[in-house]
Amino acid sequence: MSRLNPASGSFLEKLSGLLPPDTLTPPEPHHITEPRGLFPGHAGAVARPRTTEDVARIVHACHAGRVPVIPFGGGTGLVGGQVTGEAPAPLVLSMERMNRVRGLWPEENVAQAEAGVILADLRAAAAAAGRLFPLSLASEGTCRIGGNLATNAGGINVLRYGNARALCLGLEAVLPDGRIWNGLSRLRKDNTGYDLKDLLIGSEGTLGVITAASLALVPQPGATATALIAVRDPAAALSLLSLARDRAGEGVSAFELLHRTGFEFLAETLPDIRQPWPAIPDWSVLIELGLNAGTDPVGQIAALFHDAAEAGWAQDGIIAQNARQQKDLWGLREAIPEANRRIGPVASHDISLPLSVIPDFLTAMATELAALGPLRINGFGHLGDGNLHYNVFPPKGKNRDDMAHLRAQVSDAVYARTVAMGGSISAEHGIGRAKAALLERFADPARLGAMRAIKAALDPRGIMNPGAVLRR
Amino acid sequence: MSRLNPASGSFLEKLSGLLPPDTLTPPEPHHITEPRGLFPGHAGAVARPRTTEDVARIVHACHAGRVPVIPFGGGTGLVGGQVTGEAPAPLVLSMERMNRVRGLWPEENVAQAEAGVILADLRAAAAAAGRLFPLSLASEGTCRIGGNLATNAGGINVLRYGNARALCLGLEAVLPDGRIWNGLSRLRKDNTGYDLKDLLIGSEGTLGVITAASLALVPQPGATATALIAVRDPAAALSLLSLARDRAGEGVSAFELLHRTGFEFLAETLPDIRQPWPAIPDWSVLIELGLNAGTDPVGQIAALFHDAAEAGWAQDGIIAQNARQQKDLWGLREAIPEANRRIGPVASHDISLPLSVIPDFLTAMATELAALGPLRINGFGHLGDGNLHYNVFPPKGKNRDDMAHLRAQVSDAVYARTVAMGGSISAEHGIGRAKAALLERFADPARLGAMRAIKAALDPRGIMNPGAVLRR
Repeated sequence: MSRLNPASGSFLEKLSGLLPPDTLTPPEPHHITEPRGLFPGHAGAVARPRTTEDVARIVHACHAGRVPVIPFGGGTGLVGGQVTGEAPAPLVLSMERMNRVRGLWPEENVAQAEAGVILADLRAAAAAAGRLFPLSLASEGTCRIGGNLATNAGGINVLRYGNARALCLGLEAVLPDGRIWNGLSRLRKDNTGYDLKDLLIGSEGTLGVITAASLALVPQPGATATALIAVRDPAAALSLLSLARDRAGEGVSAFELLHRTGFEFLAETLPDIRQPWPAIPDWSVLIELGLNAGTDPVGQIAALFHDAAEAGWAQDGIIAQNARQQKDLWGLREAIPEANRRIGPVASHDISLPLSVIPDFLTAMATELAALGPLRINGFGHLGDGNLHYNVFPPKGKNRDDMAHLRAQVSDAVYARTVAMGGSISAEHGIGRAKAALLERFADPARLGAMRAIKAALDPRGIMNPGAVLRR
Repeated sequence: MSRLNPASGSFLEKLSGLLPPDTLTPPEPHHITEPRGLFPGHAGAVARPRTTEDVARIVHACHAGRVPVIPFGGGTGLVGGQVTGEAPAPLVLSMERMNRVRGLWPEENVAQAEAGVILADLRAAAAAAGRLFPLSLASEGTCRIGGNLATNAGGINVLRYGNARALCLGLEAVLPDGRIWNGLSRLRKDNTGYDLKDLLIGSEGTLGVITAASLALVPQPGATATALIAVRDPAAALSLLSLARDRAGEGVSAFELLHRTGFEFLAETLPDIRQPWPAIPDWSVLIELGLNAGTDPVGQIAALFHDAAEAGWAQDGIIAQNARQQKDLWGLREAIPEANRRIGPVASHDISLPLSVIPDFLTAMATELAALGPLRINGFGHLGDGNLHYNVFPPKGKNRDDMAHLRAQVSDAVYARTVAMGGSISAEHGIGRAKAALLERFADPARLGAMRAIKAALDPRGIMNPGAVLRR
């Protein structure tokens, strides 16, 4: 990768002349920090373009001047893909002003949104048209569509509707040389050569800047039901999942695994939240069915619970009887990451595994970590997708810094076992800067070679988000 | 692209020494012809490896010797991606012997199949495990998984389950330099860098050879129903589709548009097939619902028909009352391509359009083609995906050769209007050699440039299926 130049005063002055007033501004703190404060960043300036053409002018100028560009969405990513502290100072390219829903075709189940549209706003626009945009994640009030696509975001409904990639029909993007790709198709089928769309999605701003997207909407489920069910163990949770899918097919909208530790952390850090269990079970699942109108999802969940109890898989259960109770059950799930933050993890891991090995993974991993020290484990998450947020905490009365000496050992153990069992070191958060070294260590060498060749081919000057995903 | 050498006697002799006996054989006729006989091919030899390692040896030798390689699956592709007649004579790499289902995990809804597994065999293996592999197309008794993935095959259930790309969780492939990529993951979520899987899928053998795949299975629908419904016009068909999806969500498994001409061709060429209509309607749709066990899809289709009739969308309908009648309705749909072949098209087009513009497209296109001459049009296909097989035929009493002088004009008109209305020149068949010139003409220039850069980066010697997708 060739030498890069900083976004210096003279560069910015020249660029400014090509753009409408106020497009370039000094960086604000949120543009150069990330949620956990792990990656202190810097920037020569922030560009906040209003049009795709302005994005193209900016990228073209950076290409010509060999100035690094950091595409910036909502800034909520958890792997440091949106900030760099390495010299030379980059231009942060924030998409915040390109926040228009360009069109919505309810009869086609399609919306077109600019990269800066906030996820919750798109979900609201879809709902207003009687449709669902099914991407849903904790940061949806802040994160933006461009970032969701650049990082191939996941969340709670991937089981049913797929990740961000699966929900994208077409892209408009600016490639690293400043050329605009007009790929904003509303087509379900378009089999005309290499899949540039899916290559840009998940490339975390290293192969271009997404400026707008055509996105798939879905009909809103006619009737939903939610239950929290205490299960015997993770194997029983998988049996319940399998039974639910055999009966309800795609109607299983979410299937989340929760561990005792999560409820204990809630009690410890957020005591105002009402605990659902008389006695916290070791394992429970939060299941949501979204079925067609005229069906009885509450009855179906009740039947599932009944049969799971008969089989010895389920021990206790809470079936929401109305929307309020559904919201309360989801509130428990959604509060767990906050409780985790308040406890303070020694190490967090966003991993995925083949479904059927998860019970063995959890058992073996707990044994291995217990040998390292008195750690508390909260392994929970999107079981339906095989995605665990496997987070490791200090014992009660200690804090994360007390156990910092174990951090590397813990993560090494978790990643090594994950990969050995056919899993992934990043299920939904991406690589960014936090996992670039892990990628080098664990990725298939032929694939890594192909990735480097693609990067060099599309961004030969290496200006796009340098250091993210691929370090060299 | 650098100069290529033929698969000459001396090259083959040397290669033979690296491989088990009988791996290299002279080409059989089916290896160097394609279904319509449009692209006469040639080959120095056919390699029929038994293992991924042998595939790697073969590709590595071709890379070293700059010998072209044509990956070959079932040979059923309709765009000439699997044959070349251009010098120098290539090595055809047939995957027919790698036909093992390596594993099947019903509880994970995953199967792993080698590239040479025949699609129908994988469907049967899934069914034997109580699962559905939902890719379904006319050639499923002959086509092979590797070819399905290389061409991103579509078919009748894309509306519900997606195309081949959407059904693939991971790949094992040999890259153009002979390196093996072990990407045979069983994960639903794996967000670790560039999406090499989706880049190889649909690249039609020009970026590597797929040797095996992890594929998604789904639960079998508990109850299905099928109906043939005469509709007022294509706009009414879309209204019916929208209503069906609002009520049944993902339960709408297929939604096919049929035109009067199709039934007339059946009567003309396959008179033994019993016609369903007392008087053939201009437009009809074949709809299939696949719902959960315990529901009443026949009743739901009847209610849909009732409400569509009330709204003036539907005029007449035939609801299958049992599996035999379902099969008969599908038999009509599946016989139409054969009837088309017997009539002999002047020009065929596998196009897609945004759903809501399809009625205008059909009206305007018919008017435009009528001005060219007395042509018959059979525009039918996967309406739920916006995918039309828009085929144009000679008038009764004439044959395709009589109208050959109109062929170029007809296709130019169809493609120009398709693209002008936001559609695609290839919805599901791919580019191959038949549409490589069209791709150059209609593809977004920035995307085409990126495609060429990717090809040059991954296959710098240009040995992989040269001339397919990209001509230079």
